[in-house]
Amino acid sequence: MAKPLILVTNDDGITAPGLRALIRFMKEIGDVIVVAPNSPQSGMGHAITIDSTLYIEEETINREDGAIAEYSCSGTPADCVKLGLRELLDRKPDLCVSGINHGSNSSINVIYSGTMSAAIEAGIEGIPAIGFSLCDFSWNANFEPAKEAIQQIVRQALEHGIPKGVVLNVNIPKTKTASPKGIKICRQARANWKEKFDKRISPNGKEYYWLTGEFELLDNGEDTDEHALSKGFIAVVPTQFDLTAYHAIHRLNNWKLND
Amino acid sequence: MAKPLILVTNDDGITAPGLRALIRFMKEIGDVIVVAPNSPQSGMGHAITIDSTLYIEEETINREDGAIAEYSCSGTPADCVKLGLRELLDRKPDLCVSGINHGSNSSINVIYSGTMSAAIEAGIEGIPAIGFSLCDFSWNANFEPAKEAIQQIVRQALEHGIPKGVVLNVNIPKTKTASPKGIKICRQARANWKEKFDKRISPNGKEYYWLTGEFELLDNGEDTDEHALSKGFIAVVPTQFDLTAYHAIHRLNNWKLND
Repeated sequence: MAKPLILVTNDDGITAPGLRALIRFMKEIGDVIVVAPNSPQSGMGHAITIDSTLYIEEETINREDGAIAEYSCSGTPADCVKLGLRELLDRKPDLCVSGINHGSNSSINVIYSGTMSAAIEAGIEGIPAIGFSLCDFSWNANFEPAKEAIQQIVRQALEHGIPKGVVLNVNIPKTKTASPKGIKICRQARANWKEKFDKRISPNGKEYYWLTGEFELLDNGEDTDEHALSKGFIAVVPTQFDLTAYHAIHRLNNWKLND
Repeated sequence: MAKPLILVTNDDGITAPGLRALIRFMKEIGDVIVVAPNSPQSGMGHAITIDSTLYIEEETINREDGAIAEYSCSGTPADCVKLGLRELLDRKPDLCVSGINHGSNSSINVIYSGTMSAAIEAGIEGIPAIGFSLCDFSWNANFEPAKEAIQQIVRQALEHGIPKGVVLNVNIPKTKTASPKGIKICRQARANWKEKFDKRISPNGKEYYWLTGEFELLDNGEDTDEHALSKGFIAVVPTQFDLTAYHAIHRLNNWKLND
């Protein structure tokens, strides 16, 4: 049987250690083609490049990582997937994986996540897709303890297929050397960022702000991604891009909108 | 009773005619404060500014539109809402409205929409929020025919409240002068963009791409936003930011992830 074709992308950029680790993990499963941003794109959400030009460069960041071909793109993670599918790959890939992100994309972070936007873009195109994130922002984070679980999730996704309209958001707890305790299927925890804006004065006297904030968990459920992570488990949240709140349709139909 | 406090924002920028129309429509209902991007931010999805500074300017674009105060911000639509809530407003607003967008944000477009990202950001903060979009990309689009319906939706939202965890995505059909036929509560239609990349050569010989594409409706349902719009109705989709695909959890639990 032909090896599966796996499109690898991310939002931290083509040189990020998390991407390089994912390439190495995936080459043991399939043929890997990389299309990743040429600069960090964290927090880009599902941005796409409409009013600007896009550039692609063929790259050889590290041949030993084992990709068949690598391309960097000047656009967002969603642009990378679109360009990869339309311009760079000879056939539809069997899987798209995004990451491994340096930092969590659990709970409400999924909304802001460039990593997940790439996976969702592939999902919209009907390609099984998974975003992987390690809950460690360090550039020198250790991705090796997660290798076995990541490969297991990918193999299961290739074997069973991912339900239509669903992409997987996989968050991995930070561990020193031991593997995570296991894998749990979860729902997205309710949470919020309590932003604080750090107000400063520039050398030329102009006020400016830095966005900072603290994560606030608003959910005590034991079936959430945050709960699984807190107990040392990998959290897998099936994530959809039909955003309709079906439960609210009936209630809105009771509003007097057409009187 | 005190007038409601309404935060108005958008993604086309603080000078966009759609925003100016929304300010005029809202000042008849409440006290309006504007925090909007200082430049167009279409297609920004739910991007936020993490690795860069943010600037705010107090503005007087057109005093006659009737806002109490107006601020432009160097960031994304989601940044505008965060900054508005944390730094610029004295109290939590009773409502956040985003738009009126020049162009549709129906069906899958909601994923890429800066207009809706601002509304969703407010929704995450527990503020009733609505995104309005007119299916007309023209800068000179006529927003007046939608005035009555927009005000009716806003008044009903203020009266009933919007269900927790839900924001409204309102798309308005293009009409010459007549009002839309009515308002329908809908689900998000399944659809996709068939991208085409227009490949060109720069004056210095470098290849570059423009993202273009055609909208492809994949849904024949009569309960969708696209169907309502095609029949001349305003489409209201209750939209959620819990992205969990609950229906898929059981199926994923049958995978062999922990063997």
